[in-house]
Amino acid sequence: MTDQQWFYERSFRGSLAFGAKIKKVLHEEQSQFQNIKVIDTEPVGKLLLLDDKTMVADIDEFVYHEVTAHIPYMVHPKVRNVLVIGGGDGGVVREFTKHSDIETIDLVEIDERVIEVSRQFFPECTQGLDDPRVNIQPTDGIEFIKSKKNQYDIIVVDSTDPEDFAEGLFTKDFYSAVNSALKDDGIMINQTENPFYDEFGIRKIYDNMREAFPIVRSYHAPMLIYPGVYWTFGFSSKKYQPLEIIADKIPAMKKLEKTLKWYNLDWHRGAFALGNLHKNLIGE
Amino acid sequence: MTDQQWFYERSFRGSLAFGAKIKKVLHEEQSQFQNIKVIDTEPVGKLLLLDDKTMVADIDEFVYHEVTAHIPYMVHPKVRNVLVIGGGDGGVVREFTKHSDIETIDLVEIDERVIEVSRQFFPECTQGLDDPRVNIQPTDGIEFIKSKKNQYDIIVVDSTDPEDFAEGLFTKDFYSAVNSALKDDGIMINQTENPFYDEFGIRKIYDNMREAFPIVRSYHAPMLIYPGVYWTFGFSSKKYQPLEIIADKIPAMKKLEKTLKWYNLDWHRGAFALGNLHKNLIGE
Repeated sequence: MTDQQWFYERSFRGSLAFGAKIKKVLHEEQSQFQNIKVIDTEPVGKLLLLDDKTMVADIDEFVYHEVTAHIPYMVHPKVRNVLVIGGGDGGVVREFTKHSDIETIDLVEIDERVIEVSRQFFPECTQGLDDPRVNIQPTDGIEFIKSKKNQYDIIVVDSTDPEDFAEGLFTKDFYSAVNSALKDDGIMINQTENPFYDEFGIRKIYDNMREAFPIVRSYHAPMLIYPGVYWTFGFSSKKYQPLEIIADKIPAMKKLEKTLKWYNLDWHRGAFALGNLHKNLIGE
Repeated sequence: MTDQQWFYERSFRGSLAFGAKIKKVLHEEQSQFQNIKVIDTEPVGKLLLLDDKTMVADIDEFVYHEVTAHIPYMVHPKVRNVLVIGGGDGGVVREFTKHSDIETIDLVEIDERVIEVSRQFFPECTQGLDDPRVNIQPTDGIEFIKSKKNQYDIIVVDSTDPEDFAEGLFTKDFYSAVNSALKDDGIMINQTENPFYDEFGIRKIYDNMREAFPIVRSYHAPMLIYPGVYWTFGFSSKKYQPLEIIADKIPAMKKLEKTLKWYNLDWHRGAFALGNLHKNLIGE
């Protein structure tokens, strides 16, 4: 590939395209599970592709990682044990390591090569992986979760789209298994796609979550490299509401948020206020 | 063009692409001012292009139109006279006509052909233009505004990007002229681009607004067809704050919002809670 070439991701049944001008192809390999590529682009910086689908980029990696970690952390009174499923780039783990009261952070990533490639090309994302509290499990998330009971305060499902081997991460059975792996007051966070281009049936995803959890809410944040950018996330909880921020944690967050690139407490409060299309589509 | 063809808009110095598969080209003409095209696409429905730049599409026209009209309406105690500059598709005007207490709505669109083409292909947008309170002025917005003093409660600047003949709609002089055309408690709403792809200098745009208005705030809403989707809007005001919603107006809006596709009062309250990147870039 040369300077003149473009990367295109086509989505929404092949009818929508996101394109970025390529500066350089930095890496390409075929792992046991998928094609892994890293390209440097003009508009979004370094971009990690799995089977040619956009995963992580310099331009917005902090949004996804900050909003999936700090939202549940701020509404759970005592987070000791965290599990991140998927997310081999390490960005979500990095955000959890910023909280000194968390005791263990398990990362389950089926493809170890994603972690290694991320260490090489996205060191700003993987910097948290060497924290002594982090335990990396190179295994299948669905199998792993079935073996755990009453163990985690927060589980983040950092998955790809609901197709191929990630499809199982959007089922009622999976959400029930996550529920069982959580303690009695646990919280699950998951990415739930774009409601304008509703290719995978967002209502069904939310209905599946509702079968497993008594409290299910949705919030949004921009993901520039994902189809349609306006991205939704699920907040499923056994006990805590997403806007009941723990007062004792506010002073430390007020300091931390000065160093963050997206998350702040005001934004947290606004992120659950949904436009009608988003609300209606998820059945809220 | 055939079924196999794509529409691409390249932005951010030509390095970023938005692509949509074309179903059919519905219209094309060269007006006195620009190339006007309407295409039917698979992912975003009918799409209006001016000089090949995306302007309005079925998928999200309601977002822009609802959020620029109802936000200022809900924080101004008595809206009598409204001006919309640009916006020949009529969508912003349509939203204002939903409020029966508004007395006059002036629409200044330099290119009458945009209005006529919109009437033909976007009748759901132009339906408000036949309201007897609407007065269409086919003239240049910058010249028009200079001739008006102390006349409007709300002015919406529904402009294209800050280049070519729209560049003048982002200057300190223009914002000062808008200020003069507003009454003592008037509000200006304008589109202020995408902060992740900061091609035009968003900080300078906000600084220009701040030189003309004592209260300047920013909010966000998704515009699927614009580069980067995460879209920012300016709220510039002589007196009213954007989160001080007029209590007397709430019951009527509670009814109206059931018919809207995006705006609701909760969303209004959340839209001004900005992520750090957005806040920092505009200097808030």
